[in-house]
Amino acid sequence: MNLRQIVEEDDTQAGRVFDRTIQILVVASIIAFPISTLPKLSHLVREILQWFEFIVVVLFTIEYGLRIYVSEHRLRFVTSFFGIVDLIAILPYYLGVALDLRSVRIIRIMRVLRLLKLTRYSRAVQRMHRALTIVREELILFGGVALVVLYLSTVGIYYFERDAQPDTFASIFHSLWWAIATLTTVGYGDAYPVTMGGRLFTFLVLVLGVGVIAVPTSLLASALSQARREDARREAEQHGADEGESRAR
Amino acid sequence: MNLRQIVEEDDTQAGRVFDRTIQILVVASIIAFPISTLPKLSHLVREILQWFEFIVVVLFTIEYGLRIYVSEHRLRFVTSFFGIVDLIAILPYYLGVALDLRSVRIIRIMRVLRLLKLTRYSRAVQRMHRALTIVREELILFGGVALVVLYLSTVGIYYFERDAQPDTFASIFHSLWWAIATLTTVGYGDAYPVTMGGRLFTFLVLVLGVGVIAVPTSLLASALSQARREDARREAEQHGADEGESRAR
Amino acid sequence: MNLRQIVEEDDTQAGRVFDRTIQILVVASIIAFPISTLPKLSHLVREILQWFEFIVVVLFTIEYGLRIYVSEHRLRFVTSFFGIVDLIAILPYYLGVALDLRSVRIIRIMRVLRLLKLTRYSRAVQRMHRALTIVREELILFGGVALVVLYLSTVGIYYFERDAQPDTFASIFHSLWWAIATLTTVGYGDAYPVTMGGRLFTFLVLVLGVGVIAVPTSLLASALSQARREDARREAEQHGADEGESRAR
Amino acid sequence: MNLRQIVEEDDTQAGRVFDRTIQILVVASIIAFPISTLPKLSHLVREILQWFEFIVVVLFTIEYGLRIYVSEHRLRFVTSFFGIVDLIAILPYYLGVALDLRSVRIIRIMRVLRLLKLTRYSRAVQRMHRALTIVREELILFGGVALVVLYLSTVGIYYFERDAQPDTFASIFHSLWWAIATLTTVGYGDAYPVTMGGRLFTFLVLVLGVGVIAVPTSLLASALSQARREDARREAEQHGADEGESRAR
Repeated sequence: MNLRQIVEEDDTQAGRVFDRTIQILVVASIIAFPISTLPKLSHLVREILQWFEFIVVVLFTIEYGLRIYVSEHRLRFVTSFFGIVDLIAILPYYLGVALDLRSVRIIRIMRVLRLLKLTRYSRAVQRMHRALTIVREELILFGGVALVVLYLSTVGIYYFERDAQPDTFASIFHSLWWAIATLTTVGYGDAYPVTMGGRLFTFLVLVLGVGVIAVPTSLLASALSQARREDARREAEQHGADEGESRAR
Repeated sequence: MNLRQIVEEDDTQAGRVFDRTIQILVVASIIAFPISTLPKLSHLVREILQWFEFIVVVLFTIEYGLRIYVSEHRLRFVTSFFGIVDLIAILPYYLGVALDLRSVRIIRIMRVLRLLKLTRYSRAVQRMHRALTIVREELILFGGVALVVLYLSTVGIYYFERDAQPDTFASIFHSLWWAIATLTTVGYGDAYPVTMGGRLFTFLVLVLGVGVIAVPTSLLASALSQARREDARREAEQHGADEGESRAR
Repeated sequence: MNLRQIVEEDDTQAGRVFDRTIQILVVASIIAFPISTLPKLSHLVREILQWFEFIVVVLFTIEYGLRIYVSEHRLRFVTSFFGIVDLIAILPYYLGVALDLRSVRIIRIMRVLRLLKLTRYSRAVQRMHRALTIVREELILFGGVALVVLYLSTVGIYYFERDAQPDTFASIFHSLWWAIATLTTVGYGDAYPVTMGGRLFTFLVLVLGVGVIAVPTSLLASALSQARREDARREAEQHGADEGESRAR
Repeated sequence: MNLRQIVEEDDTQAGRVFDRTIQILVVASIIAFPISTLPKLSHLVREILQWFEFIVVVLFTIEYGLRIYVSEHRLRFVTSFFGIVDLIAILPYYLGVALDLRSVRIIRIMRVLRLLKLTRYSRAVQRMHRALTIVREELILFGGVALVVLYLSTVGIYYFERDAQPDTFASIFHSLWWAIATLTTVGYGDAYPVTMGGRLFTFLVLVLGVGVIAVPTSLLASALSQARREDARREAEQHGADEGESRAR
């Protein structure tokens, strides 16, 4: 059992401990982040959170170093997806310290990208990816149709409501905000048509548009069901083939 | 016909009457509860409701006693799911009287847990349970993806809107409230982005997120359809087998 | 060709004209009704609408009389679904005139029940009915689950928000209104939780509840698809059988 | 290689360049339009946008001329769908200049109809069209049912809320606006029931209505899945037939 088995594989006890430790650190640092944004925190809690962040970064740095050290093609690892993810998980902290930007918010928020480290261990992400591949064409088609519907809704409501509500529908981009909130049926209530024409237009948009926006959801769900059935069939066949083989012997 | 047949089975007339009585008492006490919270109730109605609650608790106590008495393994019944449910249905009342906590709201609200008594008689709950088993994996996958989407939305909107609306988006937890109301498309209108960046971010979140949140619904529906088809096939096969048998004779 | 063929069947030219006339009258009177509620109507338009309503009622009365006259079992027709529908279409008008209740709103609103006259001619209603039969069990199951979810949401939010917002959540019935608007994701914004507990509870309710409320939609859609496929198969088989027969000759 | 091959086909390099140029011009002019509506634009940007619009119209005019010139049946092209679309893409501009209506908004907004030019190159539109054909009957059925639900909701809420909120529910058409925003679950919050009767009615409407409005979405999604499976089967069969043929040789 060498170092590479521990870092890159999970066949050994030590390898599993290593993987689990990294996962727990990711989740813990992800949970700690929102707590640190609470306005009223005692000095002690704030200090503990800062020390915890420091320790996590040190451990992730060691992990990053180990992964580079044990990989056969080091340059290939550094430029691979997971190599970049591992770097992104620690780089913001060092940049913040080096440039004294610890209080700059964008630096701190980049911490959430550590979540990507978890995809290394996730079979769920692979299944999701396969389902997306099945409905790829339809999603692109509906993405296009949805963009057109969004565009036409935006231009239309701008035409109908601009004069009646010059503030709420000040420009096409203000109208786009209305179109987004309406077609997804969120309906915050900060922008809505008040003219007869605008309301009739909204009716048309909702009747034709909501379906277009909501269809991809159903497509994705049915693709996931299909992926599940295919997996089940493959397993059953595999099982049947195994049995056939053992009988042949 | 002994006592156990009446309490535990529904093959006899008396057993069915016993079961139906318990069910009616549960439903009646569940309906009576919200009425008792109405602000303007005459003294008479309030008294009737209190007496009704007292009678229901007495009857449920007798039922609980009978169920312990007739069960073969008494300790196993008391610690079983339904044994605990039967206890929870009456315990709050006695605790309230004993500790003079009748006016403490949490004690009174625990009455609604009596609903669980009905699951003893429900085949619908079993079908639901089977459908959930079919899509268990996907639900967990989407639960995870949904949590990540929720987390990223929360952190993102906090970054974009914190300065423009320091009250509405005071902390990550305030932003979480916005993310919940938006991704489920409820959109109360008490919190919404006002900056250009926040609105573009909301657009992205809605386009990517709404699907993720809504997919489990479609999955559950398709699993229920599958469970129905399986039931129908099983019944048809059973029927065919029966016919085959009777022909063989 | 006698009167009965005209009134009850649509094989003859006159029968089709009779049917089409009734349908047009129903639709026209249904469209005329909302116009009569507009606050600013000229005296002339108001008069025309009243005369139109009078003529429609007279024609429906003649139709009703004819249908009684030509039916074989007159009492059975009068007490049948369509007999009652035909009566309801004209009765409110006569009651209004006789009792001088023409201005009572409930009398005037009952006019919309004339829509039911159209179901006599509708094959679409039959298909819908068949689809509902297929998913009947699941709809009842989810109806039950939805009621329980609604009940628990109502009681829960009442517990969490009553003290913070004594006006909005004044009683269980006020909380029910919130639960309805939230679980259907309408979210008017007239009632929403403000406490931390209430918001966490809302999160749970939305995660568990929205699916339960939305599932019946997917079920109904898949049942309609199934009904369509069954129809197509039946037609194909019918066609095959017809061909087989003609070949046999 | 003649002019017709370039304009009408995409087999040649020049033909593909011609097609791609037109597509890019459409998209660019569609993107430029909303920018020109922004309230605060520098004089320079405004001038650039006007020149860009002028150039696009000139190029589309040349394209229109070329398409007429190369087509075999010129009159048939001019009166065809794509001939009219090509004309509509340029006509508003010339009308605006000729009649000095450049500032009239409806003239400018008709620019968005240029999007239709893209449908010439789109196979996605054809697939969408096929899916709509599959569920045509159900969509019409649900369109009808949805209209009836909308009508009854409108009349009902008018009856319940008119007295309590004479402004918000001033006429049937004001109630229709509420019904649209509620049944699509947008729920802007500008109109909602406040009476006990109106709220109970809203509950009924939402329970029965939301499903009816949302079902077509699921139907369309399942039709698209079906179209995809049919395509896959056809391709597989085609492939099988090809192989069979090559073996026969």
